[in-house]
Amino acid sequence: MDLSPGCGLPPPRFAPRLSTECSMDMDFLPGWLEHRPMVETLYLELTPPHLGDNTGDLDRLLRPLKQKGFAPLHVHFPALGHLAARIRAAQYRVTAVLGFASCHWELIDVLPGELRYPPLGFAVDLGTTRLAFYLIDLARGDVVAETSVMNPQIPLGEDILTRISQARGELGRKRLQEPLISVFNQTMQEMLQAQGYPASSVYALATAGNTTMSHFLLGLDTSNICREPYIPVANRFPLFHAEQLMLNIHPRALVHVFPNVGSYFGGDLLAGILASGMHRSSEIDILVDVGTNAEVVLGNRDWLIACAGAAGPALEGGVVERGMIAGPGAIDRVRIDSESLEPAYHVIADEKPVGICGSGLIDLIAEMFMAGILTIQGKINMRLTSPRIVSTPDGPVYILAYADETADGRDLLISGIDIGILLKSKAAMYTILTVITNKVGVRFQDLEHFYVAGTFGNHIDPLMAIRIGMLPDIPLATYHGLGNTAGRGAAMLLLDRSLLQDVERVCSQITYIELNVNMELMNEFRGAQFLPHTDPRLFPSVTIPQRASGLELAHGTEGLRA
Amino acid sequence: MDLSPGCGLPPPRFAPRLSTECSMDMDFLPGWLEHRPMVETLYLELTPPHLGDNTGDLDRLLRPLKQKGFAPLHVHFPALGHLAARIRAAQYRVTAVLGFASCHWELIDVLPGELRYPPLGFAVDLGTTRLAFYLIDLARGDVVAETSVMNPQIPLGEDILTRISQARGELGRKRLQEPLISVFNQTMQEMLQAQGYPASSVYALATAGNTTMSHFLLGLDTSNICREPYIPVANRFPLFHAEQLMLNIHPRALVHVFPNVGSYFGGDLLAGILASGMHRSSEIDILVDVGTNAEVVLGNRDWLIACAGAAGPALEGGVVERGMIAGPGAIDRVRIDSESLEPAYHVIADEKPVGICGSGLIDLIAEMFMAGILTIQGKINMRLTSPRIVSTPDGPVYILAYADETADGRDLLISGIDIGILLKSKAAMYTILTVITNKVGVRFQDLEHFYVAGTFGNHIDPLMAIRIGMLPDIPLATYHGLGNTAGRGAAMLLLDRSLLQDVERVCSQITYIELNVNMELMNEFRGAQFLPHTDPRLFPSVTIPQRASGLELAHGTEGLRA
Repeated sequence: MDLSPGCGLPPPRFAPRLSTECSMDMDFLPGWLEHRPMVETLYLELTPPHLGDNTGDLDRLLRPLKQKGFAPLHVHFPALGHLAARIRAAQYRVTAVLGFASCHWELIDVLPGELRYPPLGFAVDLGTTRLAFYLIDLARGDVVAETSVMNPQIPLGEDILTRISQARGELGRKRLQEPLISVFNQTMQEMLQAQGYPASSVYALATAGNTTMSHFLLGLDTSNICREPYIPVANRFPLFHAEQLMLNIHPRALVHVFPNVGSYFGGDLLAGILASGMHRSSEIDILVDVGTNAEVVLGNRDWLIACAGAAGPALEGGVVERGMIAGPGAIDRVRIDSESLEPAYHVIADEKPVGICGSGLIDLIAEMFMAGILTIQGKINMRLTSPRIVSTPDGPVYILAYADETADGRDLLISGIDIGILLKSKAAMYTILTVITNKVGVRFQDLEHFYVAGTFGNHIDPLMAIRIGMLPDIPLATYHGLGNTAGRGAAMLLLDRSLLQDVERVCSQITYIELNVNMELMNEFRGAQFLPHTDPRLFPSVTIPQRASGLELAHGTEGLRA
Repeated sequence: MDLSPGCGLPPPRFAPRLSTECSMDMDFLPGWLEHRPMVETLYLELTPPHLGDNTGDLDRLLRPLKQKGFAPLHVHFPALGHLAARIRAAQYRVTAVLGFASCHWELIDVLPGELRYPPLGFAVDLGTTRLAFYLIDLARGDVVAETSVMNPQIPLGEDILTRISQARGELGRKRLQEPLISVFNQTMQEMLQAQGYPASSVYALATAGNTTMSHFLLGLDTSNICREPYIPVANRFPLFHAEQLMLNIHPRALVHVFPNVGSYFGGDLLAGILASGMHRSSEIDILVDVGTNAEVVLGNRDWLIACAGAAGPALEGGVVERGMIAGPGAIDRVRIDSESLEPAYHVIADEKPVGICGSGLIDLIAEMFMAGILTIQGKINMRLTSPRIVSTPDGPVYILAYADETADGRDLLISGIDIGILLKSKAAMYTILTVITNKVGVRFQDLEHFYVAGTFGNHIDPLMAIRIGMLPDIPLATYHGLGNTAGRGAAMLLLDRSLLQDVERVCSQITYIELNVNMELMNEFRGAQFLPHTDPRLFPSVTIPQRASGLELAHGTEGLRA
């Protein structure tokens, strides 16, 4: 019962944006972004030296550049003679390549005559699972190409803690760093070759990742990140040059690694804030990034508050038995007929289903709930008669796809145990949102925008997420999927250098709150494990089906044992 | 007839300051200098990390430093992990070493606990003939030690043009550069060892030399400096780090090479301006540096004008037959008895005389003139009867020291030819001074200070220089010897970082004028070759002796043929 386009199933609210696709997203860069790229190029026809003007060859170039506002202007000492010779050899007709370094400009290169290729930059989302690369034309201000690859560290450890344990000592740090650099170089080379551009035309790179990934990339010690009191080597990383990290682009290309606020608040989220623009808004916005952790930022241009909690793994599809990340073979959308209890689903890349990803799981729980298959306590209603509702030695299950439909020839089912895990995750998500808004006395209704980032955020349907009580019951128009916010924020930084100040400001301004496990939090969490919540007034738009509320609460806790 | 102290000869107005001496000069640094050293050190006891403060290890140090005004603060990317680990290992009690780089500060190093050695710097006078090194205690603000060594490039060419011809191509540049770096390293090591300081405590080096010497040191192409239109690779050199030039001090020590205004106006003279303080004066001062060329700067805090001309070699003692630079064995002071025509002289280091240096030659000419041995046309008066006045096949000579007094057992004499050369040199000097003052309509009488720099300037007696018409006839109190102004200016820059702005300002402000050879200049020059001048009204204080004016002018030109 595969579900191809045009099967009548509504499209998800957020257009899927798969990391395996390379399509251009025209909305990738926000409208408010100004085009003040990190690297500027300037063609100059200088007056050749004569007796009346004994200015040095290099100064002859620097003088007009400074007059045009590129000041203070730094020249890399070892390049001094080489650059001056090139100016002379080009008969004083050269293009200066200038990089912005916050408190000064750098003369990255001097090229003879006019530029043959546009000045380029790479924005990289340094994800724990995948790395996404965006090749940017800095002069035109657009994305030329994008691609993503698996994080080459995965063989060293699926999760970040295993990788940290592998990264002990100088050798360990190299073991984690080198495959990253190799993949950077290989991917960038392939992307450039496909466009016919030389690596030497890439003058800037910006990358955003979580704190640990940034440390891995820079070869820094991660051992104190995962032990109390969780201290990274550095929160802010100095601007450096490609040659210092063996990156095969222009050796003097500026490399900007997004800073982190702490061990559990990384540059990826900071880039997400940039991408959302919430740090420039007068209204109150919230940004949620569900990755390994659920990370939440609340605030506006005047204040920002953040927290994080372990809500993610199940929602990303990584923990439940048939869960998988959003990719080919993953069921990402589900609908269930309330009468027949028969499902319809969509599989990414229209293949036979292999598993089910986060958005599919949310749809599934919501639809099971709406069809009365799940009680408000999250228990499978065994009183219903359907060949899909089956009792097994491990408890009741619902069969989403029969063995003859699936890629591996096994029934694709969801168990009471899986549902219990998912409800804990969605409860954690809702609890975090409740805690952070309560902290500053903001009601969900006060939110102007609710941004959802991350792989997960690209696929979920907020209507479904509200039905299961994961996201607050506010108008659907409030919700905005942002796609890959880490990559987008990095790309934005390359195209609008004034955002360097924003990054610095946000980094100083943001208050990170620790979620202390206390009675109040536990009560919140307990209530949020119901469908949609023990307090239905919180979800006025969700009509609880008759069948779901039929079971008495006393039995309902069974579904939560996991 | 050696002349030891107490022989009745007046001491020269400027205390001799020989490059072979290592005595401390208490007046080396001017009183107006403020103590704002290029490198600051700061001991900090940081709060160790705890759960309430998840600041990164490095940020933990950077935060208080920025609060104390060391901002923007740059960290060298490859040192990131190393510095953070040191902070942790030192249990958050560290000394930060901070270097000033005009538009930002640099974190040069982080040392555990408190400093064991003072922060040090080297100021180096990068002379064509000699290199002078000053070891500076940046914290106390004084000169710890000084020494000077021969320029190791001399075997490759006595004069700078020969060296430039040797410096062709990559290999040639290395040939000139490497011996310099070796001598830097060897000399600095010896000086540090003598004081018991480690090389790693040297965090800054400033050096001032002429344009070509600075290019040699930095391995830059000098071939365009000596051919029209005389263009150096660069006038301003970027600040760089010791490791980039293989200097064996702290690898991240800041190295500052004084900029030059043009091929013929080098960093040595710019350092001289700093040393004189004329660029901060409201009155009009003049600075004269007689080296290979005579270089002159005129002006005040509002304007500065400079020019240079070939007046130097003879005055430095390098051209006349028995001339030598001021060093052991050189006659540096001479008096002649007007009645007996017998000379008295002083030899540097009280050795047997080997030759005669610049100040000795000026004394000699002045005294021969005053004793009537020289006519106003500069011709030796053969009508006088003295065993010291002898006619030779090459013309008349005056014997200053007989063979039995000298180091080489030969008569030490001065010939009519020598005198002709000297008069041309002194005339060139006076002409340059006339031209530059006329250019801006300043009279010699308007000068507040007349500063004389260079090896030559350390030794000459302005009274004698006025008598021969080399320096203008203004009150002797106007004249000030400045010693080694290149080394002093470099030392001042290390001790008062605000002078970086002064250097930048002076460099932009100064107007360099070319001396165009025209009729007016030639007339000036011709008149200035007489003793003291064809126009005696220019030298009212000089009483022309009867005997000197006795010869008719028609015969006088003989002495000028050389």
